[in-house]
Amino acid sequence: MEKFKITFYPDNKTIEAEKGKTILSAAISAGVYINSSCGGDGVCGRCKIILKKGLLLTQPTGRISLKEREKGFYLACLSTAQSDVQIEIPEESRLDLEKLTPEEIDIRLKGLYSESEEIESPKTALNKEIWTHSPLATKLYLELPTPTLEDKISDLERLYRQIHKLNDIPIMQTGLTNIRRLGELLRSSDWKITVTLGKRNGTTEIVLIEPGNTSFKNFGLAFDIGTTTISCQLVDLNTKKVLGTKAAYNKQASFGSDIITRIIYAQEVDGLEKLHHAVIDGMNQMTQELIHEHKIDLNDVNCILCAGNTTMVHLLLRVEPTYIRREPYAPVANFIPTIRAAEAGIKINPRGLLSCVPGISSYAGGDVTAGVLSCGLDNEKDLSILIDIGTNGEIVLGNRDFLISASASAGPAFEGSGLTCGMRSSAGAIQKVKINSEDLQVTYNSITAPGGLNIKPRGICGSGYIDIISQMFRAGLLDKNGRIKAINHRRIRNGEYGKEFILAFKEEASSTSDIVITEADIENIKRSKAAIYSAVSSLVNHMALDFSKIKKIFIAGGFGAYINIDNAISIGLLPDLERSKFIFVGNSSLSGSRAILLSYEAMKKANEIAKKITYFELSVEPGYMDEYMAALFFPHTDLTLFSSVK
Amino acid sequence: MEKFKITFYPDNKTIEAEKGKTILSAAISAGVYINSSCGGDGVCGRCKIILKKGLLLTQPTGRISLKEREKGFYLACLSTAQSDVQIEIPEESRLDLEKLTPEEIDIRLKGLYSESEEIESPKTALNKEIWTHSPLATKLYLELPTPTLEDKISDLERLYRQIHKLNDIPIMQTGLTNIRRLGELLRSSDWKITVTLGKRNGTTEIVLIEPGNTSFKNFGLAFDIGTTTISCQLVDLNTKKVLGTKAAYNKQASFGSDIITRIIYAQEVDGLEKLHHAVIDGMNQMTQELIHEHKIDLNDVNCILCAGNTTMVHLLLRVEPTYIRREPYAPVANFIPTIRAAEAGIKINPRGLLSCVPGISSYAGGDVTAGVLSCGLDNEKDLSILIDIGTNGEIVLGNRDFLISASASAGPAFEGSGLTCGMRSSAGAIQKVKINSEDLQVTYNSITAPGGLNIKPRGICGSGYIDIISQMFRAGLLDKNGRIKAINHRRIRNGEYGKEFILAFKEEASSTSDIVITEADIENIKRSKAAIYSAVSSLVNHMALDFSKIKKIFIAGGFGAYINIDNAISIGLLPDLERSKFIFVGNSSLSGSRAILLSYEAMKKANEIAKKITYFELSVEPGYMDEYMAALFFPHTDLTLFSSVK
Repeated sequence: MEKFKITFYPDNKTIEAEKGKTILSAAISAGVYINSSCGGDGVCGRCKIILKKGLLLTQPTGRISLKEREKGFYLACLSTAQSDVQIEIPEESRLDLEKLTPEEIDIRLKGLYSESEEIESPKTALNKEIWTHSPLATKLYLELPTPTLEDKISDLERLYRQIHKLNDIPIMQTGLTNIRRLGELLRSSDWKITVTLGKRNGTTEIVLIEPGNTSFKNFGLAFDIGTTTISCQLVDLNTKKVLGTKAAYNKQASFGSDIITRIIYAQEVDGLEKLHHAVIDGMNQMTQELIHEHKIDLNDVNCILCAGNTTMVHLLLRVEPTYIRREPYAPVANFIPTIRAAEAGIKINPRGLLSCVPGISSYAGGDVTAGVLSCGLDNEKDLSILIDIGTNGEIVLGNRDFLISASASAGPAFEGSGLTCGMRSSAGAIQKVKINSEDLQVTYNSITAPGGLNIKPRGICGSGYIDIISQMFRAGLLDKNGRIKAINHRRIRNGEYGKEFILAFKEEASSTSDIVITEADIENIKRSKAAIYSAVSSLVNHMALDFSKIKKIFIAGGFGAYINIDNAISIGLLPDLERSKFIFVGNSSLSGSRAILLSYEAMKKANEIAKKITYFELSVEPGYMDEYMAALFFPHTDLTLFSSVK
Repeated sequence: MEKFKITFYPDNKTIEAEKGKTILSAAISAGVYINSSCGGDGVCGRCKIILKKGLLLTQPTGRISLKEREKGFYLACLSTAQSDVQIEIPEESRLDLEKLTPEEIDIRLKGLYSESEEIESPKTALNKEIWTHSPLATKLYLELPTPTLEDKISDLERLYRQIHKLNDIPIMQTGLTNIRRLGELLRSSDWKITVTLGKRNGTTEIVLIEPGNTSFKNFGLAFDIGTTTISCQLVDLNTKKVLGTKAAYNKQASFGSDIITRIIYAQEVDGLEKLHHAVIDGMNQMTQELIHEHKIDLNDVNCILCAGNTTMVHLLLRVEPTYIRREPYAPVANFIPTIRAAEAGIKINPRGLLSCVPGISSYAGGDVTAGVLSCGLDNEKDLSILIDIGTNGEIVLGNRDFLISASASAGPAFEGSGLTCGMRSSAGAIQKVKINSEDLQVTYNSITAPGGLNIKPRGICGSGYIDIISQMFRAGLLDKNGRIKAINHRRIRNGEYGKEFILAFKEEASSTSDIVITEADIENIKRSKAAIYSAVSSLVNHMALDFSKIKKIFIAGGFGAYINIDNAISIGLLPDLERSKFIFVGNSSLSGSRAILLSYEAMKKANEIAKKITYFELSVEPGYMDEYMAALFFPHTDLTLFSSVK
């Protein structure tokens, strides 16, 4: 088969690709990640590339304008090489794989303990419950009595005996690898050794045996594997201290922005393999950076705890996710046994363990379980709701007597994706907006660059959109449907896709065009907020409750940290309740994951929670569609539900 | 480094060896096994080879006669190639790797159930105890309910739920490999599957999941790994039926005939690796033959149970055996966790399990535990003794209240090794002897060739030596010390190493010289029998007992099956007790191993037995040396102990 050399800039990576392979596919093989929300179907138009040299065969698409075509733009997913080619990936198409800026991390982890704060125990937001300190991997320094003619039990029994003196372990396991090393190791270390004990599916495994005392070097990683973002904390398992935190984009975004697109991609040739590698590559990179920054040996990282939605966990473990989206939506596994991290391709100590927070169903994963654990919803007498706003919105309603969950396909709008000037909440994103009702004067606040440097706005992130819509509504610029009223003002004009409101003129922006919000964008946000609100209200209705019974609403997710609650209520994203009932819990999936990493008790609790939660499939609930339709207004059809919104 | 081609005949195997590498070492690398008792020190003189072509550099040795030197004989362990060479290995130096003849197998397994006999349960010789049928690997055919919107738990939970309906399993484990296959497998097999459950260190593992009903194909192997011989049975784990039996020499004999020599060899470069491969090669070969003969797929062999002395088990698992022979004689492990057979290089189903019968100490291994289990010594109210006569003699004394064991370095004499005309008990070996006291007329019986064909005698095996010495003593040819009296008879003459008795003249033998027993041979046997007898009597004395209290004596080991009890007592090998107290149990290590393969209850019992047995180190017992010295007579210094011997 004929092959061509494809070189990608600015990465300067070259790959040989068979004739007929799309440029998008070649880029993935080369380890170059290009934006793509639709999974390579030519629909989203996000994978634009520029041909620098050579010949491409491409299919017609409306996603490339005439002007762009003249400049050499193509869609990577629709183009194949006809010769050796040189391709440039413009910034807008690049899936930024660099680690997030400190500001971005701050946003994503708001509500968590600060990096250096010594945590007494993984407290829950509600009740400060203290979990017993019993990490997934424990180190024990042992000085074994030297064998004598009177005491000559075998080395392994001697080791077990000493461990049993300190711990009551009913079932202890040891692999052949450790047994093979044992004799020499014990004698050369003068019978002074450190054993790493791992908790493994109801038993305890001797994970590692090291000479001398290394018990002070025992580290673990807690991960939250989101569809869009992966967050991670390096934890000292002895002191429970969080040493460092990282967040980065999930490289799987190259294959589609939502889980359904990725599940479909997984069915392609090598699709599952590529999705698997995309996530573990990212995790390994974050791990490397963390241990490097904190001068820790990779071999001293003994375990890893992962929370993620069911699809993310399947892809992490390279388990077929297909059945998640096929009726009746039974995943392969919700309760995943603890395995060796190396089995999943995760690079920590080669014998280190990997455990996943148990999930509930195909569309309610371990991230939900971890969130509930973290907030302590399951311990409360009073009713509470946990709302995790992300590409997949997740809602849990309940108390110590019952827990019910639902998921809402909010879409990536709140993460700034799919909107005319949408962007993720990174430097230059407009995040807070005020519009003067009198003169329509706009004041905004955009995210500063690293070092706190103010820079010109580049686009609008999710919390910015909430503010804008809320403010436009208050200023009388929008009707209940989200249509922009025909007002004669320089900020309102007709664009290609209907009316649009200019937030920042190009002169004040770091952009070649004005920063606008269009009616299509508003429609998009409206659908997202309606999905979340109607999921919440459907759960409440399903339990024959009303919102007045709810004592606390936990708002989780990196996104949630910067939401203006008043504005979020006024657009009808959140229910109209006393503002004091809302509690920001930040990345509750990550904090739950860390709690489990540090406490076997929390792990057992997580198992109980996962079994206790009933997943409620909204799509089959008769009233859900009505709820959704009723929520497709600003703030809602039924204004009595939003009495505080004037 | 210069290399030479070394070709071995009749194997016709060629290997390139670096200059300076001994021919013995090169042969091992080429997979050609040569006799060698001393481990390559030039002492035993058993590794004779004949140079056919090329040049060898060798060291002076008294082990090669002038005549032999002229014929091109060399010792393989003392010679290195100086050019490409062609080497012939004479029959006497070949370590016969062929499987034993049916007659040999019969000898080694005497006392076991016959091959085709359906065994209701692994009965013990004593009390016919019935173990619950619960093999190491169990197969379950399951028809899972298809998921529905009402019942959409994950595939893995669905599988667990169904298994739990049939079994009470507190801790169930599944590897990632099985989880990865699960989704597709369940659906493509219409939710009808067979799971193989393995018992693994107090938990139950889903070893394998297969589509459809394969529950009727579930096989296991029971092994007895002896220093000299490896025996094996293929068992249908569903019906408990023994389908086939094999016995073959342990290829490790190339590296030395006893465990001490092998432990020393293990410390050489690659020594452990080679010993490990020698034993697993043999086991894999036997497995291959068995499954081929019985038309069984290797993938349907799901587990393997091994009994062996502590050194054999260490070498099987490639665990350092050095510490076994170093004071205070603490081995690396006596209780070995169940592992995947593939980890040890054993080829059955790639996910199949391997378990070892727990050992007691460095010199009392799992073979002793299995023997006690098999005889039911630990259940008896009355006192019994188990004597396993082999290269390492093993003795257990006790009842349900206590068990004490000792080992005796009997040496290989009873296996026909190290004696002038000694040979193993194969075709042509003189095994039964009578000497007429009047005219010294000798009548003997030699082992027939395959098919029952009578052939001329070629040498004398262990039971033959016992008979000869006993008969010579009765005929007044020997004094108490084992010296041959100076009687003028054509059968008695002076040889190179003192007097000798001619058992068969070369005319009647298939040999170029007379078949004789020398005073040196008698001395050798005397030391062996003294070692065993004094070990037995030391144990009895140590417990402040006397032989009259012993109700049963179990004689175990392939060798034991053909011993003439009267003769064995009269030479002082066995204590002088009522003949009805002696019970032949054959290979009790193998039958114990099979019992454990078929019953988890037996496995737990074996663990109890191994913990219960006290190993008694004879070499540090003050009275032992006196006992041994007193036993260095025929039958013994103290004739009151042998009142039935006239």
